[in-house]
Amino acid sequence: MNSCLRVDTGHVSYPIHIGSALLQQPQLIATYIQHSAVFVVSNLAIAELYLDRLKSALDGFVIDEFLIGDGEHYKTIQTVEDIVGAMLASGQTRETTVIALGGGVVGDIAGFAAAVYQRGVKVIQIPTTLLAQVDSSVGGKTAVNHTLGKNMMGAFHQPSAVLIDVDVLNSLPRRELRAGLAEVIKHGALADADYLSWLKTNAKELLSLHKNTITEMVLRSCEIKSRVVSEDEKEAGVRALLNLGHTFGHAIETLSGYGVWLHGEAVAVGMVMAADLSARLGKLTWEDARYLKSLVEAFELPSSPPGNLTPEQLLVAMARDKKATAKGIRFVLLNALGDACLEEDVPVEILRRTLQAGETLCCG
Amino acid sequence: MNSCLRVDTGHVSYPIHIGSALLQQPQLIATYIQHSAVFVVSNLAIAELYLDRLKSALDGFVIDEFLIGDGEHYKTIQTVEDIVGAMLASGQTRETTVIALGGGVVGDIAGFAAAVYQRGVKVIQIPTTLLAQVDSSVGGKTAVNHTLGKNMMGAFHQPSAVLIDVDVLNSLPRRELRAGLAEVIKHGALADADYLSWLKTNAKELLSLHKNTITEMVLRSCEIKSRVVSEDEKEAGVRALLNLGHTFGHAIETLSGYGVWLHGEAVAVGMVMAADLSARLGKLTWEDARYLKSLVEAFELPSSPPGNLTPEQLLVAMARDKKATAKGIRFVLLNALGDACLEEDVPVEILRRTLQAGETLCCG
Repeated sequence: MNSCLRVDTGHVSYPIHIGSALLQQPQLIATYIQHSAVFVVSNLAIAELYLDRLKSALDGFVIDEFLIGDGEHYKTIQTVEDIVGAMLASGQTRETTVIALGGGVVGDIAGFAAAVYQRGVKVIQIPTTLLAQVDSSVGGKTAVNHTLGKNMMGAFHQPSAVLIDVDVLNSLPRRELRAGLAEVIKHGALADADYLSWLKTNAKELLSLHKNTITEMVLRSCEIKSRVVSEDEKEAGVRALLNLGHTFGHAIETLSGYGVWLHGEAVAVGMVMAADLSARLGKLTWEDARYLKSLVEAFELPSSPPGNLTPEQLLVAMARDKKATAKGIRFVLLNALGDACLEEDVPVEILRRTLQAGETLCCG
Repeated sequence: MNSCLRVDTGHVSYPIHIGSALLQQPQLIATYIQHSAVFVVSNLAIAELYLDRLKSALDGFVIDEFLIGDGEHYKTIQTVEDIVGAMLASGQTRETTVIALGGGVVGDIAGFAAAVYQRGVKVIQIPTTLLAQVDSSVGGKTAVNHTLGKNMMGAFHQPSAVLIDVDVLNSLPRRELRAGLAEVIKHGALADADYLSWLKTNAKELLSLHKNTITEMVLRSCEIKSRVVSEDEKEAGVRALLNLGHTFGHAIETLSGYGVWLHGEAVAVGMVMAADLSARLGKLTWEDARYLKSLVEAFELPSSPPGNLTPEQLLVAMARDKKATAKGIRFVLLNALGDACLEEDVPVEILRRTLQAGETLCCG
């Protein structure tokens, strides 16, 4: 069951291929490479598992590669400079196609390197984690972290194609699988209540990687993501709804130190906090807030922030978020399950109650 | 005599204002700032001369600033990271407008910082050197250098407006004025033979900064530049012609070490070398090649490469140029004065003759 979706932002259009054994289809990958040179960016762990398979599929191309270390702490501008250096040293021109083979960190770094290399070369995203497959590889957001904040240097750089081979999920550590499922829950929460029910019904199959169920899920999530991105490439409007859970989540990640929490784990807590805040503001029923919390827990994800973070620390970190405007912190909240909205005028005393709630989040 | 041109690339459109005392017109600058926050990037020397004037014109805005050191060796990704850090520390959001006040180096760095800060904020270019006024501030090219090559990390990021106050040229060192005139000669050479004659006739007035003559020249050069950029924002075609002299010029700059040669000086030599190569290939008459060389010399610019660079060194450096393709080094050559063309298939033995000619360039 292989599927193809299209992202069409008006000025660029590209396909997302979803299915099994895509890495073994040379003719599929070759379609998206215009010249002979390919520069693969991956990391050590993924390269060991899949780089040879990819190289076999790229028979006939001139392939160079750069492997980065594993983990969010490599997501720096220094790594981008190193990639650019390796590309220059191997004589890459503006006609080179970069292939990002890896999870969200590899996709973000390689995508940004492609965005800035000689002011921009093409990139193909081959995401190898669930999080990257359903979220970060689609939509063209690339970035690296700054010591003062996550994803603070970056670019919108749409890929030529996204190739999602669900087989690679078999090698994914269970913790990362769950982290990816957080973004999947997010898609349902912001855009499709039926999808949330489907996820609840299929939780067991999904956690045990039943192939057809996983493929259907990746497809449904990519449909939601690509619909939103097609409508709003540069996050001027509706795309911001994809940040559900992220204002809280980024604060948790930043304060805990990059890499201690997985992004998806922080987003899971952030969604529960957003649901709690939505309920406190009278937008969402407490019942629906609890339902979302229970779904997060059904997928074995954390549902409350670490106890050592004070509300004041969280407030300061959130005020520095990219989604903040001069007016104040911008939240994605829920009017109902499947119906998200933006809100800039949250009274700080209500926000504090959410930040203090801890394990009683969504308990009303 | 204040003028306004427009760059219109199809998906963005912005004005270039050219005239006297523009920095004293608060209402003009304010037109291009959408929110209250402004972040000025400048360098120490320029800030001392013009920052107070700019700040007076920005009365009512919240102004933060970052000053970089003077010179091409600050044009690194480290400086961009420092600017991003300063922007984060001062709480800049995605609504901030960056103002680049300075020469080409400041414009390139500040423009790139604006391009990547939280995936892109607006930038206004206020160029203070002739080179920046007639060339680098128009067209949205931003970049920093990599140790392995000039302008190797960058982005296309069009400004919201370009404000060119010709009065600031009075404080420009004479060597930099001449370097800017090299790009002016380039505009005539690639697009307008009449403009070349006008330049020859007015060389004395231009070198002595006669205000009306200089203003007319900046306008004519910006017209050529903006016409080309409007036609081809991302250098897929005709825009590449603006690189006349740059393939040779960048090689000279890279090999001499950044900052030893001014960019315009290297471009001046590069144009003479391009004219020589064009004549050797039978495209341009030797007479026209000599005319271009004599014009370069009339503006007191160098017309031959440094004697210590070997043809082999130049060849290697050129092969690494951004304008190189997998096929080979891409040259901008001249069919005639005012008529440039791209050429990828230059026989290396003819190229070597140009690289060996030294002071006998264009002597036929």
